[in-house]
Amino acid sequence: MTTGYVWKDIFAWHQTGDGGAFLPARGLIQPGQLHAENAETKRRIHNLLEVSGILDGLHSIRDIAAATDEEILAVHDAAYIDHIKALSAENGGDAGELTPFGPGGYEIAALSAGGCLTAGRAVMRGEIDNAYVLNRPPGHHAEPDRGRGFCLLANGPIAVEALRREFGIGRVAFVDWDVHHGNGAQRIYYNDPTTLTISMHQHHYYPADTGAVDENGSGAGEGYNLNIPLHPGSGHGAYMHAFETVVIPALDRFRPELIVVLSGFDGGALDPLGRNMAYSTTFREMTRQVKSAAERHCQGRLLVLHEGGYSAAYAPFCGAAVVEELMGATDVIEDPFIPILEGIGMMDLQPHQAEAIARSAALVSRIEAP
Amino acid sequence: MTTGYVWKDIFAWHQTGDGGAFLPARGLIQPGQLHAENAETKRRIHNLLEVSGILDGLHSIRDIAAATDEEILAVHDAAYIDHIKALSAENGGDAGELTPFGPGGYEIAALSAGGCLTAGRAVMRGEIDNAYVLNRPPGHHAEPDRGRGFCLLANGPIAVEALRREFGIGRVAFVDWDVHHGNGAQRIYYNDPTTLTISMHQHHYYPADTGAVDENGSGAGEGYNLNIPLHPGSGHGAYMHAFETVVIPALDRFRPELIVVLSGFDGGALDPLGRNMAYSTTFREMTRQVKSAAERHCQGRLLVLHEGGYSAAYAPFCGAAVVEELMGATDVIEDPFIPILEGIGMMDLQPHQAEAIARSAALVSRIEAP
Amino acid sequence: MTTGYVWKDIFAWHQTGDGGAFLPARGLIQPGQLHAENAETKRRIHNLLEVSGILDGLHSIRDIAAATDEEILAVHDAAYIDHIKALSAENGGDAGELTPFGPGGYEIAALSAGGCLTAGRAVMRGEIDNAYVLNRPPGHHAEPDRGRGFCLLANGPIAVEALRREFGIGRVAFVDWDVHHGNGAQRIYYNDPTTLTISMHQHHYYPADTGAVDENGSGAGEGYNLNIPLHPGSGHGAYMHAFETVVIPALDRFRPELIVVLSGFDGGALDPLGRNMAYSTTFREMTRQVKSAAERHCQGRLLVLHEGGYSAAYAPFCGAAVVEELMGATDVIEDPFIPILEGIGMMDLQPHQAEAIARSAALVSRIEAP
Amino acid sequence: MTTGYVWKDIFAWHQTGDGGAFLPARGLIQPGQLHAENAETKRRIHNLLEVSGILDGLHSIRDIAAATDEEILAVHDAAYIDHIKALSAENGGDAGELTPFGPGGYEIAALSAGGCLTAGRAVMRGEIDNAYVLNRPPGHHAEPDRGRGFCLLANGPIAVEALRREFGIGRVAFVDWDVHHGNGAQRIYYNDPTTLTISMHQHHYYPADTGAVDENGSGAGEGYNLNIPLHPGSGHGAYMHAFETVVIPALDRFRPELIVVLSGFDGGALDPLGRNMAYSTTFREMTRQVKSAAERHCQGRLLVLHEGGYSAAYAPFCGAAVVEELMGATDVIEDPFIPILEGIGMMDLQPHQAEAIARSAALVSRIEAP
Ligand SMILES: [Zn+2]
Ligand SMILES: [Zn+2]
Ligand SMILES: [Zn+2]
Ligand SMILES: [Zn+2]
Repeated sequence: MTTGYVWKDIFAWHQTGDGGAFLPARGLIQPGQLHAENAETKRRIHNLLEVSGILDGLHSIRDIAAATDEEILAVHDAAYIDHIKALSAENGGDAGELTPFGPGGYEIAALSAGGCLTAGRAVMRGEIDNAYVLNRPPGHHAEPDRGRGFCLLANGPIAVEALRREFGIGRVAFVDWDVHHGNGAQRIYYNDPTTLTISMHQHHYYPADTGAVDENGSGAGEGYNLNIPLHPGSGHGAYMHAFETVVIPALDRFRPELIVVLSGFDGGALDPLGRNMAYSTTFREMTRQVKSAAERHCQGRLLVLHEGGYSAAYAPFCGAAVVEELMGATDVIEDPFIPILEGIGMMDLQPHQAEAIARSAALVSRIEAP
Repeated sequence: MTTGYVWKDIFAWHQTGDGGAFLPARGLIQPGQLHAENAETKRRIHNLLEVSGILDGLHSIRDIAAATDEEILAVHDAAYIDHIKALSAENGGDAGELTPFGPGGYEIAALSAGGCLTAGRAVMRGEIDNAYVLNRPPGHHAEPDRGRGFCLLANGPIAVEALRREFGIGRVAFVDWDVHHGNGAQRIYYNDPTTLTISMHQHHYYPADTGAVDENGSGAGEGYNLNIPLHPGSGHGAYMHAFETVVIPALDRFRPELIVVLSGFDGGALDPLGRNMAYSTTFREMTRQVKSAAERHCQGRLLVLHEGGYSAAYAPFCGAAVVEELMGATDVIEDPFIPILEGIGMMDLQPHQAEAIARSAALVSRIEAP
Repeated sequence: MTTGYVWKDIFAWHQTGDGGAFLPARGLIQPGQLHAENAETKRRIHNLLEVSGILDGLHSIRDIAAATDEEILAVHDAAYIDHIKALSAENGGDAGELTPFGPGGYEIAALSAGGCLTAGRAVMRGEIDNAYVLNRPPGHHAEPDRGRGFCLLANGPIAVEALRREFGIGRVAFVDWDVHHGNGAQRIYYNDPTTLTISMHQHHYYPADTGAVDENGSGAGEGYNLNIPLHPGSGHGAYMHAFETVVIPALDRFRPELIVVLSGFDGGALDPLGRNMAYSTTFREMTRQVKSAAERHCQGRLLVLHEGGYSAAYAPFCGAAVVEELMGATDVIEDPFIPILEGIGMMDLQPHQAEAIARSAALVSRIEAP
Repeated sequence: MTTGYVWKDIFAWHQTGDGGAFLPARGLIQPGQLHAENAETKRRIHNLLEVSGILDGLHSIRDIAAATDEEILAVHDAAYIDHIKALSAENGGDAGELTPFGPGGYEIAALSAGGCLTAGRAVMRGEIDNAYVLNRPPGHHAEPDRGRGFCLLANGPIAVEALRREFGIGRVAFVDWDVHHGNGAQRIYYNDPTTLTISMHQHHYYPADTGAVDENGSGAGEGYNLNIPLHPGSGHGAYMHAFETVVIPALDRFRPELIVVLSGFDGGALDPLGRNMAYSTTFREMTRQVKSAAERHCQGRLLVLHEGGYSAAYAPFCGAAVVEELMGATDVIEDPFIPILEGIGMMDLQPHQAEAIARSAALVSRIEAP
């Protein structure tokens, strides 16, 4: 089992500026703090992989190319790209909604998308079995015509559309376990039955206006967009139940030729933005199951792209767990937070959580086997 | 309406060291981050009070004395105090469980407790109507024989016991709205019918072994300890419901001569440790109600002591809301996070939350009117 | 002896952004570091004053007004002020050369200047004997038509010109011991024989094109601008020699009615920008001597305004020493760095340093006694 | 030309704790700041190498072994090693004088020394021509029986003694351009005529009691220890003059079989501890000259080990310049600080500096050609 891995130090140079959580420091928001989406939460994942020795078992892909204009324009509008390129060439700005970036930020974003594509090519060529791309900035909120929620470019769709052109892939499944709704892929593929988009997220959080169960795709794509809105406070039990009753059955019906996970760790129990209570075991187990689905349906072709996760203390252990599972590691590092986190009350599935998940499960049968 | 206020810069000098959330940086926990309980989360509350102009309307109590040995030993065991004094005189250490402190940390802790007592005296003497004490280190987890959960000394009980001796107060009510269980006051007053201890907290989080509904006091104190364990993910609605159906009715039965609020903001929607979704309006409204109860029962005598709250971005707005309500401010500052936070899904009372709260409400009638 | 003191938390909210020393983070300058001129270097001075107890002996002036347009336009060009006001109302920008500021930065700058003026008024009215204004942003590099070197407004001249109008002061002496050249006051008063401007600074550092010995004033002001360019590496001995052979003799000839010190601590031995080796004793002794001169000539009227100083570790001890001397404190706090700093080689006056200082001393006699 | 390079993320995990410059945060030294010798100053060098693309041209040595007990005990006393091992197994402590370290710090120190040795072996085997080891903690102040000045183990001597045993090297030259005195190698090799130890440093700074010109070796080693104490404030001119009149002539007489540079960047113009004014061009030029000497005498065998350097903003550009020269890069990155730094007054050689350097130059002839 060979797992590819992408990280570039320049991903840490993307500037989100001084912020109070996700708002810029101005007015009564005191300056002097990093924005929630800062470099540390990613750099420390990379550092743990190296210090723990996990990195030694990975196939590091060092040579990545930025996504080209053509690759980006397959997903985004030219006007939007021109706009953020122009800002990037000056002092940076906001790419749309809550998406600050600095001078040169466009180039980093294009490299972030390019890292996803490079890893995807290696998977498709069979050079590696699967990959973890620790890319930054993230991508799952970006829409064709604007940046949203810290995301400039739709990294996943940009990679997938290029891979489709290059390798003739048909059915692609996106599994988004970031705590926020995967609005980008939903919008891009809403009418497309060849792309299954599944998003597990905290009910009605961000974006505020998307992510409901009844957003199930439209036209030819009806049935191919699955939202699993989780009650805030959902823990390991709810995640497992959602995976077992919705995500995996949906994948098994859809039989994707490639699975792309949009992997945020902001569903973790110590995240400052999300309110859920996943912990490293949760992410480990979800990875195991989605990897197993990839093995059943598409020779293990699995691309995991980094999205949110704002606990610099805890995201590293979630990241390590996912990477270890991708590698099939048998001897795994110890997450020192587990003894406390696994004991939190209501970590297991609650009746009201099960009820909510059942509404999503009921839609799985609308997916047609190919 | 005169509201007292205590803050000393030295509270920010209490050292909790380098940490990953609440664990010390060692082993696989990378150094380079502040411990969750760091100075910034308090300093920024103070800074917002000053910059917004709120501070100008407060009665700042600058001259505070450290709690004396006698005052401290009324609550804590001598062996414990000797132990942490000795560590403090060297390089600091851990006061028990997850309670790091640095050289000189004991003196800061004694001043933190002393600040509470000084403010309490001013309230009892009628020099001020009520007070917010922005003390640090916090106190609500400290037990007679050990520090726990970032707390070295039981600030609230130390202040209350001294005030009882000095002013002959009888019935005192503690209302703890920190997201963690108020185990300290519960343990200290478990058999005492003259001290009503109420704690609203995330069900079964920290400490892991206390805070259940059926911990209702024992012996003479039976009925006088009320726990309101909230489902993780509880929002404004649950907090309001708990206040209206448990906290206020309990206070109205008990008719305290002094109310002490142990005010943590880690129930806030952006807290990295708690999983609840209170926001500034929640804390504002709880303050309004508890202040009203104080006016009904004890000439408004209300002492609010600072406990947890780990979002440096958001705790300031929660603190400002509480202080404004204590002051009876009619023109209040605008919390820039409200538009986003109040829109989070399931912010209102959920049926399963109401059910849990009802179990606590059922115990209110066990409190005897004096 | 009553010493006034000004500090407002909002001074710490002035945003200089992410920077590599004094350059903005862009290109190959990695983001993630505070700009050299950040809040910490000032806040920690204030914190030490409070924690050490020095603050208790000061007359804190809490109520300060921003400098008005009229007061500011007495020194600055209207076009420049309009320009930075406009930037401030948007996202901030750069006020000219190496002078970043954030949204609302103009208002903070006007308050910084206003703090100087408020303290100056209290000195002139005899309410206090002298004052330390811990203002931010600094002012000594600002020129009438542009911000330079982290300075937006010429705080000192703005205060002095208003005081002149309000109190009819004639001769004013500026003593600038910041490690950089006091180009602002030099330029503003270059032709004015009623304003003696003295600057001690590291030879030819910043601004690169001003500060030479032969810049001695012009026209009516000839002789009334004194530069003392110090060799990089100058220590306590050189500072003392410059004071004793240039600064004090010049003040004694000029007989000012008010002395304004532009007090930067970036001549300190641990400063990251300056290369000199002053330490707290140096600043203490200079304060003692300038205070003594003020007593001889102008009933002790002495206004000390904060300028540079970029060692968050060491500036606090320099600030405390200056404030203690202003107060005439007899029992002073211990600077823990002294044992190491006073032992640095070549801390005493070196022949080449004496030679350089002599060139400035030779110009003192050009000052006419009034 | 192949240049080896060593960096491990775990070097950034060495804990020097909370500090005010080089003193621990206690007493009146406010907590909340990183110690001067923190990870950032190294990590940002590595980051710039990667982001600029320089890293792509280096031979990264990823697989390094910690120095063994035997290798370490060839230089250090067993009692000292046992002492710091014991502290490391608990909570860390201070290795002697101003040398804090955390739990597990011994293991990191042994790896830091091991990285030097691994790179040295590759040089000796001809696998690479030369190497830059970005090791941490540093080593040049460590003495056989104690840690000093942030250094636990004498990385350079430990590597050299092992290389001598393994490869039979005779004459080794150490060139130490850190701004502090290279007391470790001086003490270890003071009587040894086969090891030439040269240190350029700020006169009489740290350690306070060593580094004078007349410390010229003793016994058989007389003449083989050269100190070049530089006036504080020495700039590019002084560094060049010292190199051309002392360092290079000494190397040319000694004809080493291996040259080890102890490369600190704290002689840089923005360093908070040193007072000198080297800049990237200075370090570039010194590297060029020492590399040329290595080519003349020992087939280019040159090992550059990282020592001090405390400007997180500027050390990266100094590091990049050294690495580029080692590689013989013809197209080098642009140091954005050069336009300002090269213009600082007295950057060129001053007469008093030349005079001081001449005293060291006079000793060169005592070195006997082999
Ligand atoms: Zn997210
Ligand atoms: Zn808490
Ligand atoms: Zn300056
Ligand atoms: Zn050094």
